[in-house]
Amino acid sequence: MQVYLDNNATTMCDPLVVEAMQPYFSEVYGNPNSLHKFGTASHPAIAKAIDQVYTALNAADADDIIFTSCATESNNWVLQSVFTDHIVNGDKNHIVTTEVEHPSVLSTCKFLEEQGVKVTYLPVNDQGTVEAHTVKSFITEKTALVSVMWASNETGMINPIAEIGEICKEKGVLFHSDGVQAVGKIPVDLQAVHVDFLSFSAHKFHGPKGVGALYIKDSQPLSPLLHGGEQMNGRRSGTLNVPYIVGMGLAIELATKNIENTMAKIRAKRDHLEDELVKLSETFVVGDRENRTPNTILISIRGVEGEGMLWDLNNGQIGASTGSACASEDLEANTVMLAIGADNELAHTGIRLSLSRFTTDEEIEYTINHFKEAVARLRAISSSFAKQAPTKGGEAQACEMH
Amino acid sequence: MQVYLDNNATTMCDPLVVEAMQPYFSEVYGNPNSLHKFGTASHPAIAKAIDQVYTALNAADADDIIFTSCATESNNWVLQSVFTDHIVNGDKNHIVTTEVEHPSVLSTCKFLEEQGVKVTYLPVNDQGTVEAHTVKSFITEKTALVSVMWASNETGMINPIAEIGEICKEKGVLFHSDGVQAVGKIPVDLQAVHVDFLSFSAHKFHGPKGVGALYIKDSQPLSPLLHGGEQMNGRRSGTLNVPYIVGMGLAIELATKNIENTMAKIRAKRDHLEDELVKLSETFVVGDRENRTPNTILISIRGVEGEGMLWDLNNGQIGASTGSACASEDLEANTVMLAIGADNELAHTGIRLSLSRFTTDEEIEYTINHFKEAVARLRAISSSFAKQAPTKGGEAQACEMH
Repeated sequence: MQVYLDNNATTMCDPLVVEAMQPYFSEVYGNPNSLHKFGTASHPAIAKAIDQVYTALNAADADDIIFTSCATESNNWVLQSVFTDHIVNGDKNHIVTTEVEHPSVLSTCKFLEEQGVKVTYLPVNDQGTVEAHTVKSFITEKTALVSVMWASNETGMINPIAEIGEICKEKGVLFHSDGVQAVGKIPVDLQAVHVDFLSFSAHKFHGPKGVGALYIKDSQPLSPLLHGGEQMNGRRSGTLNVPYIVGMGLAIELATKNIENTMAKIRAKRDHLEDELVKLSETFVVGDRENRTPNTILISIRGVEGEGMLWDLNNGQIGASTGSACASEDLEANTVMLAIGADNELAHTGIRLSLSRFTTDEEIEYTINHFKEAVARLRAISSSFAKQAPTKGGEAQACEMH
Repeated sequence: MQVYLDNNATTMCDPLVVEAMQPYFSEVYGNPNSLHKFGTASHPAIAKAIDQVYTALNAADADDIIFTSCATESNNWVLQSVFTDHIVNGDKNHIVTTEVEHPSVLSTCKFLEEQGVKVTYLPVNDQGTVEAHTVKSFITEKTALVSVMWASNETGMINPIAEIGEICKEKGVLFHSDGVQAVGKIPVDLQAVHVDFLSFSAHKFHGPKGVGALYIKDSQPLSPLLHGGEQMNGRRSGTLNVPYIVGMGLAIELATKNIENTMAKIRAKRDHLEDELVKLSETFVVGDRENRTPNTILISIRGVEGEGMLWDLNNGQIGASTGSACASEDLEANTVMLAIGADNELAHTGIRLSLSRFTTDEEIEYTINHFKEAVARLRAISSSFAKQAPTKGGEAQACEMH
């Protein structure tokens, strides 16, 4: 049996999505910007995809949703263009974000710091979330942008985006949210919640890798990141990737149409898995699961080094992660776990398990069994576990403990 | 019969390429950055694609070729990052380019001008090409970058890239070429010709839309445009679009493997089409065809407005263009034709016909017939043609005339 439990890194493209994209490679292949029939033949499919995305997010007609190549591009776009528009060519000098954003936000902020921007990296609480009053207290008259992820890729913890949105609106500060881990996992209603810019990506909800989007409230001004032709009303140039746009439209529809229903099923499987794993001694799961995306567990097992666990799971044909896939090739401590106050040893033990609607009960049972055996195997060879394991309530008090 | 003669705008994705991409949507779907088998399973395919691209362009091992979402991204990347690295954070202030670049270069240059950069837009000669000595004479000690397209999307005319490369090398100035219309149409040997940065895009040579690349000579420094994870050695972040990378690899191999042979066949069809069309009175083809990409004709027919001609061709199921698809939704004069000195009326008559290896002899014959009839139809209703048509050698002397 193969079990893929790394759906926060990327998902399997839904076979229905793959099928829907096929005609746009070699049959309806014209450039949508061309005036002839080969070009315009794709317009109905593109219009449908746009409708599907608007509907899924309850965006208003006055808003813009612009397709990009990925959420990394969307995040870079917002940060770099707010820098150009409001800092270089405006009177602001400050961006507020959190310590636990995705690398595409954090690295861009570091780059902007090198260009003279002041960036505040807000700490998170022991749940791994930022508190709205913390955001409020760091906004100044010089703040151009607040950027806070909707839900964490590593912990699944959900930030108080509605509250932060209201604060930003009140203060007249632009608000961007990286919604990559929220869209398709929890309801996202852009008429109920105030965000100026929302980034998201198809491959996190069973669409193809290589297409994302940026939502822009009220079609407000934002310099392009990619200058060029007239595509997307001049907001994002480059020949439209018709198959992937079609795929993203269907993928978001499939992911959000009965989201409560679908997520209840995933949540039940996740909770069962979590309940079983925390029966192991000295295990810690980050964050209250009621405020977590329903598919995610970030679990630490004292005495079991994350990389070793990953290796053992991999031998058992189980794909998991020690955290963000974007930082998975190094052996550093999990930065989110450090940020919530875990000690350095514990921060090396995080294993993220992330389910999808394709995860089966059989896969969960198989994983529970393999996981427990793996912990026994790895603790048996752990040099530190027998000697150093703290009692419950010891060093790891910053994490939720089971 | 349907005839697609707009291959400079985009091409049909080769069915072999579509087939090669299929396993990477729903079978081998892991994130290549993940450490588990689901992720690493894609590594051989990615390595193969990289090899195919290096081989096609004869890149050296020391060079970098970084996949992007399109050549528009590659062009923006070079221009914006040279701006950051050598102008904002360096002692240069000047970029040299031409009047006839693709909008993704021209619009980015306009944007950089707003940020204080001095940009020289070099004129082209009556062939639509820039002359190497002209480039040389505008390079100063403050020049950070020279950016000249390898071949024109509108005319197919080929610039003296080898000569310009030598001049830049000698002067110690970075040299970027937009190679979108060259790669897959003419031999491009990056060990024989000196360019620091080369942009290209898969969908121009029967690969998918939505994947491009940037070649970086000797892996030299260039700030990323997309900051984030560790993908592509940190040079371009965002989850790898595995299917399209695989597709691009095969597409460039298929396009370049027997390029002389393939292009000789396309050239023969193109030349026959051109020979037939210029038998019509008062027709003008831009540029010497020996120095043109073998698939391209930009033809003007006095008294036949380009948009009307496009419409008539479209009714005959023939897809053509009045110029760049990126600017095809407006009714402006063809800027390249204006740049080479055509009068305003003539600049409204340009029709671009661009062939591919899938174009058949039957399609060419059908096009010749329909085109001739269309000219007769449109000239019959032209208010200006009967009265104003100049004699040969009149106003249109800047164009090559037949």
